[in-house]
Amino acid sequence: MNSPIIEDTYAEAFNTKAAHLLITAATEDLAKTAATEATGFATSFIGCPAEAGIDSYFPPDETPDGRPGYSIIICQNGTEAVEGQLLERIGQCVLTAPTTAVFNLLDSETTTNLGFKLAFFADGYQEKVEEYGRVMHRIPVMSGDFLIEENFGIADAVAGGNLFIMAKTQATALMAAQSAVNAIRQVRGVITPFPGGIVASGSKVGSKKYKFMHATTNEEYCPTLRDKVENSRLPFDVEGVYEIVFDGLNEDLVRKATQEAIKAIKTIPGVVKISAGNYGGNLGKYKINLIE
Amino acid sequence: MNSPIIEDTYAEAFNTKAAHLLITAATEDLAKTAATEATGFATSFIGCPAEAGIDSYFPPDETPDGRPGYSIIICQNGTEAVEGQLLERIGQCVLTAPTTAVFNLLDSETTTNLGFKLAFFADGYQEKVEEYGRVMHRIPVMSGDFLIEENFGIADAVAGGNLFIMAKTQATALMAAQSAVNAIRQVRGVITPFPGGIVASGSKVGSKKYKFMHATTNEEYCPTLRDKVENSRLPFDVEGVYEIVFDGLNEDLVRKATQEAIKAIKTIPGVVKISAGNYGGNLGKYKINLIE
Amino acid sequence: MNSPIIEDTYAEAFNTKAAHLLITAATEDLAKTAATEATGFATSFIGCPAEAGIDSYFPPDETPDGRPGYSIIICQNGTEAVEGQLLERIGQCVLTAPTTAVFNLLDSETTTNLGFKLAFFADGYQEKVEEYGRVMHRIPVMSGDFLIEENFGIADAVAGGNLFIMAKTQATALMAAQSAVNAIRQVRGVITPFPGGIVASGSKVGSKKYKFMHATTNEEYCPTLRDKVENSRLPFDVEGVYEIVFDGLNEDLVRKATQEAIKAIKTIPGVVKISAGNYGGNLGKYKINLIE
Amino acid sequence: MNSPIIEDTYAEAFNTKAAHLLITAATEDLAKTAATEATGFATSFIGCPAEAGIDSYFPPDETPDGRPGYSIIICQNGTEAVEGQLLERIGQCVLTAPTTAVFNLLDSETTTNLGFKLAFFADGYQEKVEEYGRVMHRIPVMSGDFLIEENFGIADAVAGGNLFIMAKTQATALMAAQSAVNAIRQVRGVITPFPGGIVASGSKVGSKKYKFMHATTNEEYCPTLRDKVENSRLPFDVEGVYEIVFDGLNEDLVRKATQEAIKAIKTIPGVVKISAGNYGGNLGKYKINLIE
Repeated sequence: MNSPIIEDTYAEAFNTKAAHLLITAATEDLAKTAATEATGFATSFIGCPAEAGIDSYFPPDETPDGRPGYSIIICQNGTEAVEGQLLERIGQCVLTAPTTAVFNLLDSETTTNLGFKLAFFADGYQEKVEEYGRVMHRIPVMSGDFLIEENFGIADAVAGGNLFIMAKTQATALMAAQSAVNAIRQVRGVITPFPGGIVASGSKVGSKKYKFMHATTNEEYCPTLRDKVENSRLPFDVEGVYEIVFDGLNEDLVRKATQEAIKAIKTIPGVVKISAGNYGGNLGKYKINLIE
Repeated sequence: MNSPIIEDTYAEAFNTKAAHLLITAATEDLAKTAATEATGFATSFIGCPAEAGIDSYFPPDETPDGRPGYSIIICQNGTEAVEGQLLERIGQCVLTAPTTAVFNLLDSETTTNLGFKLAFFADGYQEKVEEYGRVMHRIPVMSGDFLIEENFGIADAVAGGNLFIMAKTQATALMAAQSAVNAIRQVRGVITPFPGGIVASGSKVGSKKYKFMHATTNEEYCPTLRDKVENSRLPFDVEGVYEIVFDGLNEDLVRKATQEAIKAIKTIPGVVKISAGNYGGNLGKYKINLIE
Repeated sequence: MNSPIIEDTYAEAFNTKAAHLLITAATEDLAKTAATEATGFATSFIGCPAEAGIDSYFPPDETPDGRPGYSIIICQNGTEAVEGQLLERIGQCVLTAPTTAVFNLLDSETTTNLGFKLAFFADGYQEKVEEYGRVMHRIPVMSGDFLIEENFGIADAVAGGNLFIMAKTQATALMAAQSAVNAIRQVRGVITPFPGGIVASGSKVGSKKYKFMHATTNEEYCPTLRDKVENSRLPFDVEGVYEIVFDGLNEDLVRKATQEAIKAIKTIPGVVKISAGNYGGNLGKYKINLIE
Repeated sequence: MNSPIIEDTYAEAFNTKAAHLLITAATEDLAKTAATEATGFATSFIGCPAEAGIDSYFPPDETPDGRPGYSIIICQNGTEAVEGQLLERIGQCVLTAPTTAVFNLLDSETTTNLGFKLAFFADGYQEKVEEYGRVMHRIPVMSGDFLIEENFGIADAVAGGNLFIMAKTQATALMAAQSAVNAIRQVRGVITPFPGGIVASGSKVGSKKYKFMHATTNEEYCPTLRDKVENSRLPFDVEGVYEIVFDGLNEDLVRKATQEAIKAIKTIPGVVKISAGNYGGNLGKYKINLIE
């Protein structure tokens, strides 16, 4: 293990609403294709219609229909907003994807009858059936039949888990971020919504200069601004910083993901320091400490 | 070559607006990650914020900055709608992706100053520079600097190119669809926006039963409805149908993609018939004949 | 579940010797690259220097060094033959691969001191160290240090598990074979050594016509020979057959893989029959029944 | 462009014999699977049965049968050795791979009748046919028919092109090596045979200490030996070195690959120096200068 400095700080995470779904298909590749499309354009609540990502691979013996699958998580700031995203993302990106079926993974008192609604696509030919011990809807399509569970849970979740990885070079920070994403993937119930799980352009809330901007570059951590800002927070030997951001179904999962990520980052030589983003408690109610 | 029946019909395509961008990165994998996120959740104008997809790989010696890249196309029904999608998709899914830069690929009288606008993210530290013979904006971020061209063309394009592939089994129709997508990928300027380029649930316009539905399953082509509808259009030995849908920068490209796709489909044994979707000319102004 | 006929027969499997190794790396992709190269050109004892394949993904919290890894299995017909393959494959394909380390996964009385031998590459600069509770050798290389465990177990294993998948089309048989490979991947201790895990050209032992051939096409199962041979074993509606072949660390694992594969194959519509290859008990001592 | 020091030296390349083949399949993925297996365990003449690698993607409109394909190159030190490798690698790794066909890409006076020989696998059911303007052999197999051209050229080629990439960190050297491999992939006729195209453990010829070793670590370039050897050739700020090795069909291609690789390496920030391996002209007859 290498020994980067771990700053004694916390990531400030906040409340969101989330759904947790399982997409199965005839092969692992086909399941991944559907899950990727359904969770695209979903890196950040600022500017994207949702935060979403692939959660975990489910091998055939862990799925209701005995086919390989990927779980995904879709987050938005309210139950109705999640419902809207589910209708559009599952309707346009999974119903349309070869050989897929969709199952609910989240027990919750609050549910949405996504399967019932999508079944109208069948134009009267839909069937409500019980399969795999679940209430499902069967929708005849050109490639065969599409099966989707009737109800999907929507529940509170925790968004905004994050870490800053400061390293001697950009490529080292990136490799460390990739290793962290690999580690978080094994924590079921946590996603890393940014491209490849990684944020190249970590931001601060608001702007010093432009009132119309909700988020702008975090200049204190920008290597090429080191000599142009007064308050650079970069150690002298840091030339690259990547952030990872993750959302989890609950606070414990986000804490676990944080620790697994830190362990992974420490396997990469050349990382100088690990920190996290917080805003003095103004953004969210969860303080995810780096040092437990 | 196998000899499926090619129906003497046409795909009905329609007008859209489009942008054509090049995303480069340090490695091919990183460029693909960014391009995939930026074009996700973008299969269909019905229900998605855009139709978008990866167009083509650009090897290092074909890009301005000598790095590998992927071109993407983003379509919406008006210039402002495309502008909005560019701001959000490039701002959230490419600016945030490791090591990327973005260049315009489309000469057009109509342009949007996407680079200028995104540069406000730099909170006053942005720089307008001339590099690679182009006007660019340099945005300092945590991982280094992000470079993006100032202006991006937006122009008329053609959406809704399509083919129906009817085969003896679902898997054969799918393999034929995959081969068609492989073939279209080599036609620069054409994308296949659905998951993996393929539509499992081809639709008709409107609904026979539900007035509130804009599109419903195309029951005449559903194998599991063959005995439940009066007007099934499936040959007796067809058990699987996939559709491919493609959007191109102009009509000629969509015609070329159609012919390349048909040639590819013919390489797969077990395809019975190739057709296409049209609506008697009510949907769009382009008739893309299958038999030229 | 679909209902193909499952022939009441058995796969005839035979004894081999095997090693079971874990390759870790900085990221999952890097581990996979090394594992793929190390197990290439290793589909069949006839004509290849070994049978080898990727076994299973090991997430960071299941590996000694906390990095992601892939386990591989390398088989040959004797202990010395396995030793030779280990020296060459690990020496040329893993020592040379970026950021890798190698650990033993197989407890056995018979071991080979692979790590000790490979350490001579360090030309005197090697170090024997104890790390992760294991005796390791540290080899300085241009990219840093390479770590490999000293001793690797070699033990009896079972090769030649197999299934024949007969389907209405070639593409359906292939999709079913892919689903079977997906299912077997989750049985740790079993590999599918052929390309993508699948055999397109299943063979019979020897030849009817050419004395110098050790294995030739299994004409009784060739769709294009149906009318040219007297003893075709293909159901009338079968146009495509793929075989899957798998090797396991013991007989129970091969039995389990067989059942998992059959379950997976049954999820694919259009499969007509499942059988297996045997030679009246002349080839191997294990009879792996399809119906338990 | 960044400005690493480019040492005014040369890579010492040497003569080999090579074959150049095209593997096509129903889809790009299937072609890649076959090409990967066929070129595995083939990084170095020392310890591997061949040096081999994937050369280039061939889109459907550039292949004889209108299907996507990958070209591969297989090198050994004599015509008969190449013949042997072709028989084994194509016979075991491509004939066995789903939906493949194989074509010759190399015009040469010296040819091997690989297709004729492999056709004996058909046990008398083979057919010699003329298709795509080529003399082919059709081999009935369980999945359908396998087609392979009769004759394949074997010709002189150039092995041992190489570059050393010295960077501030291991991860930066690796990213630069990956970018170089991306660039070389677009030079048709050149392969990078090591895992992912990259060598983590560059070697010197022979050994200072062990007479039985043909190649040992290049201690002058090992970062962790900097203080233990007297003649370290590492700049003070270098902590990671990767080598790339490439083989080409002729000297011009190796020169071109060298220059393309250098250009690519210069796009990665944090690279300190680029050099190459040579042995005073004792190993090979080609001097591939870094500075032209």
